[in-house]
Amino acid sequence: MIFLFTDFGTADLYVGQVKGVLQGRAPAEAVIDLLHDVPAFDIKAGAHLLAALAARLPAGSVTLAVVDPGVGGPREPVAVLADGRWFVGPDNGLVSVVAARAKRNEAWSIGWRPAQLSVSFHGRDLFAPVAAMLARGNRKAAKLRSTALAVRLGADDLAEVVYVDHFGNLVTGLRAGAMPTDRKLFVNGRGISHARVFSEVKHGEAFWYENSLGLAEIATRAGSAADALGARVGQPVRVERG
Amino acid sequence: MIFLFTDFGTADLYVGQVKGVLQGRAPAEAVIDLLHDVPAFDIKAGAHLLAALAARLPAGSVTLAVVDPGVGGPREPVAVLADGRWFVGPDNGLVSVVAARAKRNEAWSIGWRPAQLSVSFHGRDLFAPVAAMLARGNRKAAKLRSTALAVRLGADDLAEVVYVDHFGNLVTGLRAGAMPTDRKLFVNGRGISHARVFSEVKHGEAFWYENSLGLAEIATRAGSAADALGARVGQPVRVERG
Amino acid sequence: MIFLFTDFGTADLYVGQVKGVLQGRAPAEAVIDLLHDVPAFDIKAGAHLLAALAARLPAGSVTLAVVDPGVGGPREPVAVLADGRWFVGPDNGLVSVVAARAKRNEAWSIGWRPAQLSVSFHGRDLFAPVAAMLARGNRKAAKLRSTALAVRLGADDLAEVVYVDHFGNLVTGLRAGAMPTDRKLFVNGRGISHARVFSEVKHGEAFWYENSLGLAEIATRAGSAADALGARVGQPVRVERG
Repeated sequence: MIFLFTDFGTADLYVGQVKGVLQGRAPAEAVIDLLHDVPAFDIKAGAHLLAALAARLPAGSVTLAVVDPGVGGPREPVAVLADGRWFVGPDNGLVSVVAARAKRNEAWSIGWRPAQLSVSFHGRDLFAPVAAMLARGNRKAAKLRSTALAVRLGADDLAEVVYVDHFGNLVTGLRAGAMPTDRKLFVNGRGISHARVFSEVKHGEAFWYENSLGLAEIATRAGSAADALGARVGQPVRVERG
Repeated sequence: MIFLFTDFGTADLYVGQVKGVLQGRAPAEAVIDLLHDVPAFDIKAGAHLLAALAARLPAGSVTLAVVDPGVGGPREPVAVLADGRWFVGPDNGLVSVVAARAKRNEAWSIGWRPAQLSVSFHGRDLFAPVAAMLARGNRKAAKLRSTALAVRLGADDLAEVVYVDHFGNLVTGLRAGAMPTDRKLFVNGRGISHARVFSEVKHGEAFWYENSLGLAEIATRAGSAADALGARVGQPVRVERG
Repeated sequence: MIFLFTDFGTADLYVGQVKGVLQGRAPAEAVIDLLHDVPAFDIKAGAHLLAALAARLPAGSVTLAVVDPGVGGPREPVAVLADGRWFVGPDNGLVSVVAARAKRNEAWSIGWRPAQLSVSFHGRDLFAPVAAMLARGNRKAAKLRSTALAVRLGADDLAEVVYVDHFGNLVTGLRAGAMPTDRKLFVNGRGISHARVFSEVKHGEAFWYENSLGLAEIATRAGSAADALGARVGQPVRVERG
């Protein structure tokens, strides 16, 4: 099973090209779009989203993880095996939070290169073929060599908004499991209390809850928290006792 | 064959998680995105769109139908078998128009529960596993018990805009087959006449026609009817003799 | 392998219906969304995008190519075999640039008609079944007869913006391979120089480069070229010596 996690956009002409390559090289593998709207160029937000999503990826799966503003520059391609799941992408920090939080992880530089490598689309030309190799169990073809990640963002939570969904909910980089429910989250000076579920709060009221990825998420019942709070990706979130 | 009909959004991180579950539990089943941009939280619009789409779904198919503003609250999960097609989702009215219009239909409460059930994403945790069970013909695993739908929106047409597509066309909840072509549709005070096809009308002119789902749809040739008429989902539509 | 290239929109309820038909008629074929956000109704932009994408499509693949403002009118359905790749769609110019640039191409009129043909959705009712027939190698079922394309846009480059991606990059219809890198592109009176890759230019600076499809593309590092230049699809692009 190959998962795609990118900032290529859902609507654009990039994902289809990646899938054409994967279908040609690993026709028996299911390919699943995990997320193509990682905030554009935003490695930090992407790294924390990926770390939250990773826990539910099946063992043995391969995730193509590409948010790559430095494509064509000196950053290296890397493969990480974290708790039995593969991640393939640029060594720019994107896969480093997953790696740092894993019980076991190893990183490899990727030696394989295609005959033709575009300067702007390594997702199609390099990472997709390598993802296909790993999905088929063919590590040797990818020419992996043990390495250490060049860019590491650490394992800590990120006290920022990392994603705004189409409902206007604000996903933060804070893991809710470790956060007592008497805490308030402050965004743009507004204090927001915990509720367990949408139906517990009044229409139009903002609250935070543990979302389905285990992250603290701020929502407004039957409305957009992003609009109500004037918040977007990158917005700092402060945690205080209520 | 499993169809997905939700308000999860095409671009967000929800659909991929649902597909991961389906792939794990029913790897041989084709999974097809029917629509993920059902107007958010809009059960009524969703119910009428689903009823129009249902006629073309193959017998034996399973549709995961989730528009679920009450997730985490008391509403129950339900499975409906309507004219040989399965629908799985919350018992909040969403699948009730399909059921009411079917020649034969049965409803079952779903007894199966996952080991871990998030409060906000039953699409992934409960409905997807049950859809996989039914697609594989394993009713017993889903622990179905005969029931009656708790919320029923009836079989009648809905004289409202239920969907605005990216061309700006206005899909109504009115079935066109029963509507004489000398009728005018009134939206925001503007009377709109019938035409059979786009090429029959002048550029910029609004008209209504029977769309490919059998619903009356209002369009403007080479333009956006939504912009021209200032209309959106929920807008009332009045039918009068021309 | 069946590729989909349309202006049906990624989010709307059209693509799922097409896939339902393909799955029913050619269940063993992989179906890949190449692009569903071809600029709406824009045959010329679509034809040049398709021609650029075609080079990477595998031999033997079938592409359903539908941008069809004249649907329901007199335009005919057509199948083109260009350098071993099939293209199925309306004979309105959309597949004519691919055909004109191919070393070998043949065009056929499509004689097959469905029992029920909607007036507005030939993509689902006619082109999808025919694409499935060709993907399965069943030319006879499609009732093909040799023909000449009715509308031909020629093989020449198009000096216009043909696509704006979600980063705000401007894709032109100019093939970069034949364009010396000392040329400047002029858009809205602004002259834009060449750079090989994003990391070569300063933040906020506009440049053009050969994109991953071989087309000249205008980008702004870490920003939207579309916003910076006030440009959109259809915008003329002038090429001059720098």
